[in-house]
Amino acid sequence: MTSVSLGLDFGTESVRALLVDTEGNPCGIGESVYQHGQIVDSLPHRDVPLPPRYALQSPDDWLNSAAEATGKALLQSGLNAESVVGIGVDFTSCTMLPTLRDGTPLCCLEQWADKPLAWPKLWKHHGAIEQTARMNAVARERAEPFLQRYGGTIGLEWFFPKMLETIEQAPEVAEAAQVWLEGGDWLVWQLVGGDAENLTRSTCQAGYKAMWSAADGYPSADYLAALDPRLAEAAAQRMPGILRAPGELAGGLDPAMADKFGLLPGTPVAAAIIDAHAAVPGVGAASPGTLVMVLGTSSCHMLNATIERDVPGVAGMVAGGILPGLVGYETGQAAVGDAFAWLRKLLGLDSFEGLTADAMRLPPGAEGVRCVDWMNGCRTPLMDGNLRGMFAGLGLNHGPAHLYLALLEASAFGLRWIVELLRENDVPIDSFIATGGLPHHNRAIVEVYADVLNETIEIHPSKQGPATGAAVLGMMVSQSDQVHFASVSEAATAMAAVPESERDLVSARPERAAVYDDLYIQYRRWAEMLTKMES
Amino acid sequence: MTSVSLGLDFGTESVRALLVDTEGNPCGIGESVYQHGQIVDSLPHRDVPLPPRYALQSPDDWLNSAAEATGKALLQSGLNAESVVGIGVDFTSCTMLPTLRDGTPLCCLEQWADKPLAWPKLWKHHGAIEQTARMNAVARERAEPFLQRYGGTIGLEWFFPKMLETIEQAPEVAEAAQVWLEGGDWLVWQLVGGDAENLTRSTCQAGYKAMWSAADGYPSADYLAALDPRLAEAAAQRMPGILRAPGELAGGLDPAMADKFGLLPGTPVAAAIIDAHAAVPGVGAASPGTLVMVLGTSSCHMLNATIERDVPGVAGMVAGGILPGLVGYETGQAAVGDAFAWLRKLLGLDSFEGLTADAMRLPPGAEGVRCVDWMNGCRTPLMDGNLRGMFAGLGLNHGPAHLYLALLEASAFGLRWIVELLRENDVPIDSFIATGGLPHHNRAIVEVYADVLNETIEIHPSKQGPATGAAVLGMMVSQSDQVHFASVSEAATAMAAVPESERDLVSARPERAAVYDDLYIQYRRWAEMLTKMES
Repeated sequence: MTSVSLGLDFGTESVRALLVDTEGNPCGIGESVYQHGQIVDSLPHRDVPLPPRYALQSPDDWLNSAAEATGKALLQSGLNAESVVGIGVDFTSCTMLPTLRDGTPLCCLEQWADKPLAWPKLWKHHGAIEQTARMNAVARERAEPFLQRYGGTIGLEWFFPKMLETIEQAPEVAEAAQVWLEGGDWLVWQLVGGDAENLTRSTCQAGYKAMWSAADGYPSADYLAALDPRLAEAAAQRMPGILRAPGELAGGLDPAMADKFGLLPGTPVAAAIIDAHAAVPGVGAASPGTLVMVLGTSSCHMLNATIERDVPGVAGMVAGGILPGLVGYETGQAAVGDAFAWLRKLLGLDSFEGLTADAMRLPPGAEGVRCVDWMNGCRTPLMDGNLRGMFAGLGLNHGPAHLYLALLEASAFGLRWIVELLRENDVPIDSFIATGGLPHHNRAIVEVYADVLNETIEIHPSKQGPATGAAVLGMMVSQSDQVHFASVSEAATAMAAVPESERDLVSARPERAAVYDDLYIQYRRWAEMLTKMES
Repeated sequence: MTSVSLGLDFGTESVRALLVDTEGNPCGIGESVYQHGQIVDSLPHRDVPLPPRYALQSPDDWLNSAAEATGKALLQSGLNAESVVGIGVDFTSCTMLPTLRDGTPLCCLEQWADKPLAWPKLWKHHGAIEQTARMNAVARERAEPFLQRYGGTIGLEWFFPKMLETIEQAPEVAEAAQVWLEGGDWLVWQLVGGDAENLTRSTCQAGYKAMWSAADGYPSADYLAALDPRLAEAAAQRMPGILRAPGELAGGLDPAMADKFGLLPGTPVAAAIIDAHAAVPGVGAASPGTLVMVLGTSSCHMLNATIERDVPGVAGMVAGGILPGLVGYETGQAAVGDAFAWLRKLLGLDSFEGLTADAMRLPPGAEGVRCVDWMNGCRTPLMDGNLRGMFAGLGLNHGPAHLYLALLEASAFGLRWIVELLRENDVPIDSFIATGGLPHHNRAIVEVYADVLNETIEIHPSKQGPATGAAVLGMMVSQSDQVHFASVSEAATAMAAVPESERDLVSARPERAAVYDDLYIQYRRWAEMLTKMES
């Protein structure tokens, strides 16, 4: 009998269910779009308009879509429920919600259903601007040690800012909230059941979005109380659960859920992982030293290492944050595919085709056009969302291709900055894998990255990196006699890595790479100048 | 009998002949395109390819087209030759040529016809890059006093660099050249005849393009000899003639030319003027204190004053340079209409219409987009053709209209810089007139200029400013009993100014002007930063 793992990949608009066997063969896939999608204008079925910057979701949508997608995947696979030996879950983050101690989301109760802040806040909900600023100011004033693990800055989209937003903006909701937790953790809790004290929280979500570390736990009660005594109380009393790394067992599938999903009760479920981070096992990179670059509208670059280093400007360094036993470093670039699409549209073009061909015919340096790629701020290393982008060196002889090449180069220089920063801090990087949606329809960006880094980059063929990663984690918790993986690394290699002879490798072109050393130094000068101009 | 003056306006592609009466009524106009246009690829009728950056013209074209255009204008006017009481000539500059002492251009002699440097070099001929650099270096080293009148920099397109180019690149041509002179001066010489010693050179061309001043004459023999002894010899021996201001008499029309043009022998001809400078009398601004802004692909801003001030960065300050008895200040912006057209094309748009409307609906400051308008270098005040343009503050929310408004604002800030520079140096400016091609199809730029300057700007309706100015100067030398102007100012007012009640005035909008004070300071900061980055 075939043994497959179910990877459930919860995105912003839909959930994908992927069945993968122990050799990495995809056996079935199903997708289901959330009934209410992103809730940004008004609450579903109610005449409650939402303020700007709000982005909510419905927890019922998550469960209903996941069950539907799983059914589709099973149908497509032709397999029965007995074949599914494990379940892994990846989820957007920080998407978080308040519930009762029995797991009921507050927004599902008639009493709270018309309070926007009783609903799950999607990762991109930006209602906590003021709270984030205050959390940063107080943390810096107090020289909170956790800051060092996050490049010195708490993010607007993180867990505690969203919690404090509710405490201050809707205190009655906060008072009713018995449990605060991540969407991924809530989903796993619903799958396995059990009481609140024993719910499984992911070290990934906790580490990257709630300033938790294995050594120090969450931020101190003193710090949280300095912001608001209610925040300290909530952190202490309303965040029950046990922390487990992705790939560790959360529990067996609850009978009611087994029925809803068409699976067997007791099927093992792994602790959740953030969707982007799931790409690391999802491309077979579960060993230290491989930078996994998830290239999409923005980019998330992840790296496992065996050592802990406080690297200034790294978005998060979490022991066990991506995989058990390894230290996960997360870095990112705030606008990548987004910035390319913005420029294409700005230039009045419907497609990248001609633009890319023209740009690739230009010499490195775009005949004098210089760009800094901060159209959505700078994530790593400056962690400043207010910075903005630039084109300089512009002359009447320059056309669309010059600007586009300059932007691709700027993105590559931003990546090189990250790579150099990690290496300068003794965090080794010895190989590069590009994944996400972008490399498949924009090979040029990987070519420019390879030239600028002067490194070979593997383009991973999977279009389902996170779902595959979730399936790898699900396989790790399998208790089937048919499954024999000694480590996540072994499972990831077997289920997700491309055999060496079949890898799609993009190598640096030496004559272009040589030119980029000098242009990179110029990029850093422009970047420094821009930060001075903005300050 | 109607008395009209003939203005001959020699442009880059064609000559226009305009007949204007003493009250400013246009009585007839004719245009004739040069047979050989700009000569940039190879010499006419010969298989002599030209190097890059060469741009030549044919002196026969000038005379033939001028005669044809005059004939058309006369025909259209229904007037006969007796009505034409004076002739004025404006000409592109520095367009210059070598001739024999009888006025024959070297290129018209079989012996020299296949030597490119024996032909007239058009203003935009850029063959003297190396010579210009050396002339500047030596002038600075010697602290030549003339430099102060030109913002410290000799231009690539000026007279002596073009002369030195020929001396060094084609010494046999330079040896054969008995007279070196401007195209406008040559044209006037052909019209009035006479020997080389008495040919009339314009103080305008000499002052703005050959570093001449009434007080000091041309650059010293020592300086020229330090560059090349042959240059000093040529300046002393091969530049005969008498300097006269535009609006002063050069002589009466030669009988052979009268025949060719269909005019009366003896018709008075005025000293030539540079085409851009002719716009000053051409819009009726012959009094001190009016900044005449000729807005086209690039912009030339001219101002008459009663005082001489060495203003750092002003392109040229010449006593009698524009009109007799006044000190003419010339400043400029290197890319205006050119830059707007470049951006429109870059943005993939066929027309300015929607772009302008969208841009004008945005608040001042283009919602954060910052621009420096140096896409073709910076003329006044930095006199640096190597500087390049910039857009900064770019975010994913910005579209074409943001960039376009930012560019219009940058152009306006560049103009404000010039205005403040002149005023800070006690050169008064009390009114503003916009002319040239741009204001007629791009009123938005004048509106932004008015807001940024916080001044009222008159848009002059004439589409023939330079030709009208030439006609004003022609009228000044008339000896007809029917013409009674006591000064150029009086003639210009009568023939070219718009009556006060009919003026098209663009006023500053106070709420926008207030915002621009701060944005102007920011522009200066960005400009300063860019010059540092380039150095």
